[in-house]
Amino acid sequence: MKEFKTSNAEGPIENFVNTYDLEPRAEKVIPKGAFGYIASGAGDEFTLRENDRAFNHKLIIPHVLENVENPDPSTVVDGHKITAPIILAPVAAHKLANDSGEIGSAKGVHNFNTIYTTSSYSSVDLPEITEALQGTPEWFQFYFSKDNEINKHIIDRVKALGIKKIILTADATVGGNREVDIRNQFVFPVNMPIVQEYLPEGVGKSMNYVYGSAKQKLSAKDIEFIVNYSGLPVYVKGVQSAEDVNRAIDAGAAGIWVSNHGGRQLDGGPAAFDSLQYVAQAVNHRVPIVFDSGIRRGQHVFKALASGADLVAVGRPAVYGLALGGSKGVEQVFDKLTEELKMVMQLAGTQTVDDIKHYQLRDNKFV
Amino acid sequence: MKEFKTSNAEGPIENFVNTYDLEPRAEKVIPKGAFGYIASGAGDEFTLRENDRAFNHKLIIPHVLENVENPDPSTVVDGHKITAPIILAPVAAHKLANDSGEIGSAKGVHNFNTIYTTSSYSSVDLPEITEALQGTPEWFQFYFSKDNEINKHIIDRVKALGIKKIILTADATVGGNREVDIRNQFVFPVNMPIVQEYLPEGVGKSMNYVYGSAKQKLSAKDIEFIVNYSGLPVYVKGVQSAEDVNRAIDAGAAGIWVSNHGGRQLDGGPAAFDSLQYVAQAVNHRVPIVFDSGIRRGQHVFKALASGADLVAVGRPAVYGLALGGSKGVEQVFDKLTEELKMVMQLAGTQTVDDIKHYQLRDNKFV
Amino acid sequence: MKEFKTSNAEGPIENFVNTYDLEPRAEKVIPKGAFGYIASGAGDEFTLRENDRAFNHKLIIPHVLENVENPDPSTVVDGHKITAPIILAPVAAHKLANDSGEIGSAKGVHNFNTIYTTSSYSSVDLPEITEALQGTPEWFQFYFSKDNEINKHIIDRVKALGIKKIILTADATVGGNREVDIRNQFVFPVNMPIVQEYLPEGVGKSMNYVYGSAKQKLSAKDIEFIVNYSGLPVYVKGVQSAEDVNRAIDAGAAGIWVSNHGGRQLDGGPAAFDSLQYVAQAVNHRVPIVFDSGIRRGQHVFKALASGADLVAVGRPAVYGLALGGSKGVEQVFDKLTEELKMVMQLAGTQTVDDIKHYQLRDNKFV
Amino acid sequence: MKEFKTSNAEGPIENFVNTYDLEPRAEKVIPKGAFGYIASGAGDEFTLRENDRAFNHKLIIPHVLENVENPDPSTVVDGHKITAPIILAPVAAHKLANDSGEIGSAKGVHNFNTIYTTSSYSSVDLPEITEALQGTPEWFQFYFSKDNEINKHIIDRVKALGIKKIILTADATVGGNREVDIRNQFVFPVNMPIVQEYLPEGVGKSMNYVYGSAKQKLSAKDIEFIVNYSGLPVYVKGVQSAEDVNRAIDAGAAGIWVSNHGGRQLDGGPAAFDSLQYVAQAVNHRVPIVFDSGIRRGQHVFKALASGADLVAVGRPAVYGLALGGSKGVEQVFDKLTEELKMVMQLAGTQTVDDIKHYQLRDNKFV
Repeated sequence: MKEFKTSNAEGPIENFVNTYDLEPRAEKVIPKGAFGYIASGAGDEFTLRENDRAFNHKLIIPHVLENVENPDPSTVVDGHKITAPIILAPVAAHKLANDSGEIGSAKGVHNFNTIYTTSSYSSVDLPEITEALQGTPEWFQFYFSKDNEINKHIIDRVKALGIKKIILTADATVGGNREVDIRNQFVFPVNMPIVQEYLPEGVGKSMNYVYGSAKQKLSAKDIEFIVNYSGLPVYVKGVQSAEDVNRAIDAGAAGIWVSNHGGRQLDGGPAAFDSLQYVAQAVNHRVPIVFDSGIRRGQHVFKALASGADLVAVGRPAVYGLALGGSKGVEQVFDKLTEELKMVMQLAGTQTVDDIKHYQLRDNKFV
Repeated sequence: MKEFKTSNAEGPIENFVNTYDLEPRAEKVIPKGAFGYIASGAGDEFTLRENDRAFNHKLIIPHVLENVENPDPSTVVDGHKITAPIILAPVAAHKLANDSGEIGSAKGVHNFNTIYTTSSYSSVDLPEITEALQGTPEWFQFYFSKDNEINKHIIDRVKALGIKKIILTADATVGGNREVDIRNQFVFPVNMPIVQEYLPEGVGKSMNYVYGSAKQKLSAKDIEFIVNYSGLPVYVKGVQSAEDVNRAIDAGAAGIWVSNHGGRQLDGGPAAFDSLQYVAQAVNHRVPIVFDSGIRRGQHVFKALASGADLVAVGRPAVYGLALGGSKGVEQVFDKLTEELKMVMQLAGTQTVDDIKHYQLRDNKFV
Repeated sequence: MKEFKTSNAEGPIENFVNTYDLEPRAEKVIPKGAFGYIASGAGDEFTLRENDRAFNHKLIIPHVLENVENPDPSTVVDGHKITAPIILAPVAAHKLANDSGEIGSAKGVHNFNTIYTTSSYSSVDLPEITEALQGTPEWFQFYFSKDNEINKHIIDRVKALGIKKIILTADATVGGNREVDIRNQFVFPVNMPIVQEYLPEGVGKSMNYVYGSAKQKLSAKDIEFIVNYSGLPVYVKGVQSAEDVNRAIDAGAAGIWVSNHGGRQLDGGPAAFDSLQYVAQAVNHRVPIVFDSGIRRGQHVFKALASGADLVAVGRPAVYGLALGGSKGVEQVFDKLTEELKMVMQLAGTQTVDDIKHYQLRDNKFV
Repeated sequence: MKEFKTSNAEGPIENFVNTYDLEPRAEKVIPKGAFGYIASGAGDEFTLRENDRAFNHKLIIPHVLENVENPDPSTVVDGHKITAPIILAPVAAHKLANDSGEIGSAKGVHNFNTIYTTSSYSSVDLPEITEALQGTPEWFQFYFSKDNEINKHIIDRVKALGIKKIILTADATVGGNREVDIRNQFVFPVNMPIVQEYLPEGVGKSMNYVYGSAKQKLSAKDIEFIVNYSGLPVYVKGVQSAEDVNRAIDAGAAGIWVSNHGGRQLDGGPAAFDSLQYVAQAVNHRVPIVFDSGIRRGQHVFKALASGADLVAVGRPAVYGLALGGSKGVEQVFDKLTEELKMVMQLAGTQTVDDIKHYQLRDNKFV
């Protein structure tokens, strides 16, 4: 296997006007296969495209006499005040994008001050990530092994590091048909040390191989197991239906994470944003909701919060920031989204994140 | 008339990622007129395009906690277990696409193990097709002659070969305005031996001539005739309305085949998939439903089954597979759709075909 | 003023597959200004484009067991059997398209056997057109003069020639903003002898000048005047609202002509086809309905009849036929639409024009 | 800072067919940064594009028997008869477009005879504008200072000049994310003398700096203050919600100005035209409504009036007219819109502006 060389940029990123700017620039610094893996979606990419378009299905009406000034995008999660309700989504193998890998992104998230979600498929091992975060809240995204003893061992490690929550990804029990990866004959050029017990050698393995190493057969029992064994709050990620909401909460889930995996899993399904309102109705404030899949703008953050999300997570934009500017690039992405969010808050007439959550969007009748 | 030379490829097809890949590649190996005949639709091709787009009118919501692993796409039809609920649609004159003609496609269908539907306008005679199928279930698609004695004779031959069902095509009593064929001045370069009694010489005849040789005036009486004379289960193909459903079933039809003939007949009508739900409601589980027109993806198969179909049929993709890879290419097309279907089943949370049939799609409000 | 030279073609038109083929070919044989006048619409041409797209708002569902064979598109109007319910719309100055002018189109209409509507702005005088029609039914489209004595004189001439109906155009009391004409600095290069009493010299006059010469202030009283003075059946053309339907019928109109003047008058209004159903509901079978604006296909004819029209009229396609093939070209256009209509009738399951009128289209929910 | 050189054209503008013609031509005569500032919208320009498209959501149905001739577009505002219900929207710094600046536009508005709205950010001081208007009605658009003593001083000046109304812009308490300006590194090359007390030096300042100098924290109290201190009728500009309508009127507003600031402030919100009907319903004829954002056609004026507006305002088209033809160009823009409006009035069957206000548009079901 050819040696893998990717970006080693460290920011600041110049001339960075919005997060859409980053993808074509990241394409130039990340090797083709790795970029394809990060950027592409499943099948015809219908769902990927919908993830973006769907934000136009709801409209923000300016409220202009709300006595707002210097709106405050900060929010408190588990007693920790974060700069904005925008957190890092779990993304596999940050070393695809920048030599600094998860260390770079952890530092960027720390500097911005928000929550970092560590992927099971990280290209850096858990203790190093935790150390780089310097006390910034860390959550752990879990792809289950078929072997519960291995799962227990991973949970033990997670707990020992003081990680705050476990996010069980449930929408990727097999890999989606990532045709770009097939055409590029993409195999992972880096290892995934966190899951080395069930995936000892990641280098040279395809995405399907990697997903195939994890557990396919997920049900409420797995949530119960992880809740009981870990004692940590468990969020279920990849939820888009009321049925799954109820199953998850009944099994002890402490949060619901609405996502379609960035359009990377099941093509022909809805935009995650279109599902959010259904999920929020089913959750009915019983547990917090995290939302990802398509956030590229401050207005998207606003619309997701106004549709029931408590937090939003960003994946690709942060990874592109990492590629183009290392830890500083990651921080800039969060800064940019926050800056846009504040502008939207001011113009929409919302002083606080709580105001956004009570804000009523208008349905776009003309789509 | 110029000698007709088409592909004689025998697979496997390389770099075959999805069935959409095949059409432009088939265009390079099939002579222009023949390719135009296969690929094109009627009129402005509005209905042809809708056949594809319509699948986005319904959305698959991932159900992520359904305890699914290695989903089983097989289904049992008349006591015969087939690999997937995906069968071969009747398509005229396979020799347009590959010298092996129906022999090649029959072998491919046999190797995959599903149902083969023999077109009245096959370029190979019945016994040879049946022999190539080696016991794989065969159905016979019937274009009626104006002369019932000829029809009886054809039915006698069909029965003698042990063919299991008769599919009466009712939506092509005249040919659609296939303008591509007109522009290409397309005439059939091969004979159609099954209907030689009413169409003795197919070579050099236009599509309109061929259709004009068959019976125009179809009604419930024709269904009664064929049911009574053959004693076989008769499906009526080309149904999109509740009126036709009821007429057909009342006349003894044993199945309903929803189709708009691949967008080749009446332009300005709906996508077949959009009609499926109306038909399913009218059928109300009285008889099985077969669906064709637009299936290109495993997710399309899933959506059709979840909308009331018991089986789906594919035409053009299989013929392109035949052109590019002979019998092996046909098999690969069925394999690919099945592989995609299994992935969708896993991600949607459905273990069996029966689970798909009970799965509830979400209407896409944003089209 | 430069001498005006246009096509003098006399058919048959070769390689004529559908009426859409004709516009780009006509553009090559008609001088630019004249072609722009014929082809263009008002303003942004939104309404012009909608005229075409709107036919997709309703869908024809094939009815496949209706016992149809050789469907009959003929219909009887005032005791005269015409070949199809497709008539010639009034169009100004046929000499723009072909030296034969209205003589050519009259002969074509005669040979096809349908109704000819003579425009007030014809480039040939009434008696010559009537003579060329050789007994084929002729209707007269009227742009009122501001001077009723002139109107009476024109009516007298019309009656003396045995013309059967008067069509009062009411939607063009000023010219629409035909920006293509303005950009081309188009002025009429031919005279309009029928209205020479109020527009003595048409050559060199702009469209706005010509329209400005006619009467602006139309109301129910004008219908009453023309009904009473002429004693002929009077149709009101350009109706799209229930209000105008009721005003016209109450004032004695014998028919309603739904049209938006081919998208040439008020941009920002609906497709004429979208208005047809509203008008049909308001008319409620009290008087016949003629429909124009956008008919390019047999399926359009079918959809208009199934939406309440008794006859449809075609303008531009016939004029393009005239440009490309003189009288024969006009005939070919009617033949082509009729051929397509018959195919649609067969596939939709309708034996007669009356069957079409009772046929139920399906609303397209996906536009 | 580089010397700023822009157009010094003085009309008439040649070959001016519709206002859409002007933008690409203005782009050639206005320096890039200034043109970008004028033409661009916020963010992805979704809302900017919607402003134009939204007019197709409502359709004008021709009423053809309404006895209309030479329709009268004039209307009376505060006892002053203006040529058409089309006024000048407040636009910053006309000197960006033409050396004559607000003097040129004031003369154009005077010659056409309509209402001139003076922007707080004018590049010419109040008395000179008032003088150039020669008695033509003038309204004053106000961006509040954070310091009410400055606000009082400005109001004193406004009143002293006999200005008739104050328009409080409430939708721009911060600048929208005008990414074109960021990419162009646009800073204002001209001063803004009216607000020099709180923005002493405009030259070289960014849009964000300028907006940041004004007051962010607006509420009903500010309306009360300005109403009470000025004694003038106060309109609130930037209203799109029923909540703001009620707050504004309850606080003493004498008019509501529906606008989304030409798509320049909050991207991801609705077209202003789509909001107009909601606002009109909430206002319920208690106060007059002015509408801007997207008016480019006479049909747009008509549709806005028929949707509840009493007056419409135009911004960019007038500024482009100024760039291309100075005062004469401004006048031509108003003339063109009026000419189009008259044509629409005639074809829609409305004799007066009041008739338009009682005209019922048809919802476009097909968008």
